Amino acid sequence: MAFKTDIEIAREANKKPIQEIGAKLGIDSDHLLPYGHDKAKVSQEFINSVKGNAKGKLILVTAINPTPAGEGKTTTTVGLGDGLNRIGKKAAICIREASLGPNFGMKGGAAGGGKAQVVPMEDMNLHFTGDFHAITAAHNLLSAMIDNHIYWGNELEIDERRVSWRRVMDMNDRALRDTVTSLGGVANGFPRQTGFDITVASEVMAILCLATDLNDLEKRLGDMIVAYRRDKSPIYCRDIKADGAMTVLLKDAMQPNLVQTLENNPAFVHGGPFANIAHGCNSVIATTTALNIADYVVTEAGFGADLGAEKFMNIKCRKAGLSPDAVVLVATVRAMKMNGGVAKADLGEENVEAVKEGCANLGRHIGNLKQFGVPVVVAINHFVTDTDAEIQAVKDYVETQGSEAVLSRHWELGSEGSEDLARKVAEIADSGASQFAPLYRDDLGLFEKIERVATAIYRADEVLADAKIRNQLKEWEEAGYGNLPVCMAKTQYSFTTDPNRRGAPTGHSVPVREVRLSAGAGFIVVICGEIMTMPGLPRVPASENIRLNEEGLIEGLF
Amino acid sequence: MAFKTDIEIAREANKKPIQEIGAKLGIDSDHLLPYGHDKAKVSQEFINSVKGNAKGKLILVTAINPTPAGEGKTTTTVGLGDGLNRIGKKAAICIREASLGPNFGMKGGAAGGGKAQVVPMEDMNLHFTGDFHAITAAHNLLSAMIDNHIYWGNELEIDERRVSWRRVMDMNDRALRDTVTSLGGVANGFPRQTGFDITVASEVMAILCLATDLNDLEKRLGDMIVAYRRDKSPIYCRDIKADGAMTVLLKDAMQPNLVQTLENNPAFVHGGPFANIAHGCNSVIATTTALNIADYVVTEAGFGADLGAEKFMNIKCRKAGLSPDAVVLVATVRAMKMNGGVAKADLGEENVEAVKEGCANLGRHIGNLKQFGVPVVVAINHFVTDTDAEIQAVKDYVETQGSEAVLSRHWELGSEGSEDLARKVAEIADSGASQFAPLYRDDLGLFEKIERVATAIYRADEVLADAKIRNQLKEWEEAGYGNLPVCMAKTQYSFTTDPNRRGAPTGHSVPVREVRLSAGAGFIVVICGEIMTMPGLPRVPASENIRLNEEGLIEGLF
Repeated sequence: MAFKTDIEIAREANKKPIQEIGAKLGIDSDHLLPYGHDKAKVSQEFINSVKGNAKGKLILVTAINPTPAGEGKTTTTVGLGDGLNRIGKKAAICIREASLGPNFGMKGGAAGGGKAQVVPMEDMNLHFTGDFHAITAAHNLLSAMIDNHIYWGNELEIDERRVSWRRVMDMNDRALRDTVTSLGGVANGFPRQTGFDITVASEVMAILCLATDLNDLEKRLGDMIVAYRRDKSPIYCRDIKADGAMTVLLKDAMQPNLVQTLENNPAFVHGGPFANIAHGCNSVIATTTALNIADYVVTEAGFGADLGAEKFMNIKCRKAGLSPDAVVLVATVRAMKMNGGVAKADLGEENVEAVKEGCANLGRHIGNLKQFGVPVVVAINHFVTDTDAEIQAVKDYVETQGSEAVLSRHWELGSEGSEDLARKVAEIADSGASQFAPLYRDDLGLFEKIERVATAIYRADEVLADAKIRNQLKEWEEAGYGNLPVCMAKTQYSFTTDPNRRGAPTGHSVPVREVRLSAGAGFIVVICGEIMTMPGLPRVPASENIRLNEEGLIEGLF
Repeated sequence: MAFKTDIEIAREANKKPIQEIGAKLGIDSDHLLPYGHDKAKVSQEFINSVKGNAKGKLILVTAINPTPAGEGKTTTTVGLGDGLNRIGKKAAICIREASLGPNFGMKGGAAGGGKAQVVPMEDMNLHFTGDFHAITAAHNLLSAMIDNHIYWGNELEIDERRVSWRRVMDMNDRALRDTVTSLGGVANGFPRQTGFDITVASEVMAILCLATDLNDLEKRLGDMIVAYRRDKSPIYCRDIKADGAMTVLLKDAMQPNLVQTLENNPAFVHGGPFANIAHGCNSVIATTTALNIADYVVTEAGFGADLGAEKFMNIKCRKAGLSPDAVVLVATVRAMKMNGGVAKADLGEENVEAVKEGCANLGRHIGNLKQFGVPVVVAINHFVTDTDAEIQAVKDYVETQGSEAVLSRHWELGSEGSEDLARKVAEIADSGASQFAPLYRDDLGLFEKIERVATAIYRADEVLADAKIRNQLKEWEEAGYGNLPVCMAKTQYSFTTDPNRRGAPTGHSVPVREVRLSAGAGFIVVICGEIMTMPGLPRVPASENIRLNEEGLIEGLF
C-alpha cells in the first residue's frame, strides 16, 4: 500500500497562522502569545473574560486496553473534532502534551495519525512550549530547598529518613529510580536514600492540570507535604517557602497551548500524559476554557478506560465540577483480534472468530463506563485491512452490550471519514441523557475507595495490602485527608496488575505496593503491582535512530 | 535617592516588536521565529546567507575581579552598544544567557542594570527560549543511554568504574554533587558512584557555544568521551549512538536569540555563562553572525578578565578564528575602594587613598590583557556616589599603566552617558592597532599550558598537581589531545584559588584538583582549588522571597 507516513502527512500540512486558528474561537491575537508561527499560549486575561460561559458539551474519548496493534485514541479525538467542525459544529479538541523521555524509548508521538493529526507534531514531541521543563525545574527547586534547609541547620526538624519529596527528570532513566544523594563529605550535606520519578509523575504536574488559576496553583503547591518530623508531623512545601518561586517558574506553563489539526481546527494541548502513573488528563484550565468558547469539546484520557477514563471521572470531573455528556470508546478490529489470540504478524488476515473472542475486553469497558451514568458510543477506528465481516462482528457485539458502534475512517479520510461518528456523538451529547456521577463518594474510606475501583472497574476479587499500607491510609484519614479520591498507578495493558493478561480476566487480586499522599493535587497515589514511576529504556532505544537528515528534518522520532 | 530599580525601569521599557529590531540588522521577519512578541530565534537560512561577510569589529568587555560592590560588566556591554548606535554606528550586542539555578540562590539577573538593560529581563532570567532546558535534556539523554547500554549487556564493555559522563541539572543543588545511582536491585541496573553538575558546566553547553552549525554540533557531540574500558580505551558518545538524538534535541537551541536593549538596539543573547567553571562566552554562531551583519559587535566574557577574557582569547577566539579589535576593562570606584580595604557599608564616603591602593587589581588585569596584543580601554562604570577626586585617581593610575580610562554614565543616563566611551572604543577598534595572538601555542604540553596561564595571568609561582593528574595529562597527549587548550575552573574572586585574596597577590601556588577531557568541545577542564561544578544554595536562598504579586508581576527575582 502506498499510504504516506504520519510525519509525511504532517509535513505537508497547510498550516494557518495560529492567530487565524484563535480567531475561530474568538480569541483575539492580542491574547495569544506566539511560540513560532504555529503555536501560542492563551492569555490569562482572555481566560478570565470567558469564565462562567460554560456553554459547551464535554465529550471524553477513551479506549480499550492498549495492544501492540494500536487503537488510535488521540487519532480518534482529532478525527472526531474535525468531524464535528465539518458538520457545522463549533468544536475544540483538548489533548495532552507529550512527555519527552518516552520518545527516546519505544513510544512514538502523541499527536494523532494519518489524516487526523495535530501539528506541528515535531515540536509537540520535543520541547513544545517548555511546560514540562518548567514543571521539572519547579519540582527540583523544591527538592534542592529541602536538602538546603537540612544542610543549614534544619530549623524545621525534618527527619531526613522521612523526606517524601523526590526529584524528577523528563527522561526514561532507570538508574535514577533509587539513589543515595549528598555523599562526599560535610560540604555536600547529609547522605540519604531517595530517587527520581519521570516528570509526568510529579505532583506539580498533577497540580498544574487541576488548578483553576495561578492563585489556586500557588495554594496547592504550598499544601504539598514534602517530609515529616520524627513525631510524624508533616512539613509542607509552604514551610520550605518554595511555593512562591515555584509559581513564578510555572506562570507560563499554566497557560493553555493552542495549535491546530491538519484541517485547521483549534486544539488545546495542555497537561500531563501517563494515566498509568498519574491522572493523565488535559488540564482543567484548558478544558474549562474550551467549554466556555466552543459548543463541543472533545478531550481524551490516557491509556485504557480502566485507567484514564476512571481518573477522568473520579478525579478530574469530581474536582473541577465537570460533567461529561458522552463517552467515545475507541476500539479497532486489529486490537480485538489480538485480544482474541492472533499474533501481530497475522493481523492482516480476516479472522471473524478471533474478533468475536477478543470483544470481551471491549464489553467490559462498556459496562464499566456505564457505571458513571454517561452514554457510551464505540468508535471503530478503521484500518485498511479490516473486512466488512469483522467490522460487523464488532458492531453486533456492541449491540448486545446495549451500546452502538460507529465505523470511522478519519485516519484515511480526515473529517470526511468521521462524519457519521460526529453526528452520532453530537446527537447523544445533545440528548441530555447523561446522568454523570463519580464511582464513589468523598466520604468513603481510603482503602474502601481502592477496593471500589479494583472491584467495580478492574473486576478483581480483592485488594492486597499489608498492615503498613493500611495503617498509613488510616493515618491520613485521621489527618483529614480521608475525603480525597485515589489515583491508581497500574499497568495499562491489562485490567489486572499483570501486563500479560489480556481480555476480561476475573479471579485476580490487586496488590498495593506503595501509597503516596498528594495533598496539594488532592489525591492518594496507589501504586499497584510492578508499575514504575520512572520508566527505563528498551534494549534498542528509539534514540539510537533519531537524527536530523541532510535536509534538516527529523528522522526516527515518530 | 529616588532612583528606580532595574526591574521598574525594565517594566517601563518601550519595547518594539522584535521584527522591527531584526530589521535594523537586515533580518527579515521570515527569518525570525517569534517567542512571544519580544524574543525571536534567527533562522539558519539567514545565518547561512550572511556567512563570510565578516565586516564587523569585535569588542570584548571584561572586568576586574568581582567584588560585592558590583562592577557592571553586562551593564557596560549594553551601555557601550547603545552608545555606539547613538553615535551613528551599526552595533550589535552579544551577551550570554542566564543560568536558572543561581537565580534562586544569591545572584540577581544577567541583563544589565539601570538604563543599560536588555529586555524582557524576567523571561531572560527564567526559561527564556528554553535553550538550557534543551541542553539539560540532551546531556541527560546520553547519561540514560550509557546506563541503559550497561544494563542490557554492556556490549561495548564499559568499565562501570570509569564512566566519566555525569548528569546535569540547572539548579544549585549540592545534594547532587556526589551520588550513588542504580540502587534497588536488578531491575534498576548496576550501582555506581557518580554525580550531577550544573547545566552550564556541561560539555554539551560548551559545544553548543563553539559549534559553527548543526553538522559541526553533531560531530562534536559524537567526539565526546563518556567512559573507558578496563584497558582504558575510550568510549565515545558516538559509540552509544546518542549524537543524533542529542542534535535533534538541540536544533532550536543552536539558533541565536534576538532581543533588544531599552533603547531598542539589537542584542543577541545566546550561550553559556559561568566563566569560573566553563568557558563562559556568547556562542560562536551568535558572535560570528553578528559580525557578519553589524559594523561593531560588543560582547562580554564572564567574571574577571583572569577567567572570562583569558578563555575568550585562548579558547573561543582560537577555535573560531576570531580576532578582537579592542578590549574594554570595566572597573568601578567602589570596587577599587573595596580592593583597597573599605568595608561595603563605608563605600558611600570619599576615600581617594583606598581607591589608589585598590587599583593594583585593575593594573594587573590591564597588563594581562596586553599580553594578547589587543588594545585596552578602561571603562569606569559611574556610580552616583563617586567623587571627582576618586574618579581622577583611577584615571591617573590607568595612565601609569599605559592605558586610558573613560568615565561612562550609561547606568544613569543610557547612551547619552556612554557616548565618550563609544567614541573612544570605536576609534581604537578602527585604528587597526590590535595584533591579537593567544597566550600559548597549540603544541605546548598540556601541563605547560596550565603553567602558562597560572604564571602569566594568575601570576602564581607554580602549579601543584599530583602524579595522577600529571599522568592523566600525559595519557591524553599520547592519545592525540595534546593540542587542546585548557579551560581553567577557578574562583572568580581572586587571581589565586583563595576567594578571599583580593588585590594583586603574588607568591601563591595553583593546586589542580581534577582534570577532565572535553574531547568534543576541544579543551581540557582544569579544576583548581575548591571551585565546585555544582553550586549550593545559601542559608536564606533568594527563592524564599520570589513570588508573583497581586498584579501578577514577579517579585524578588532581581
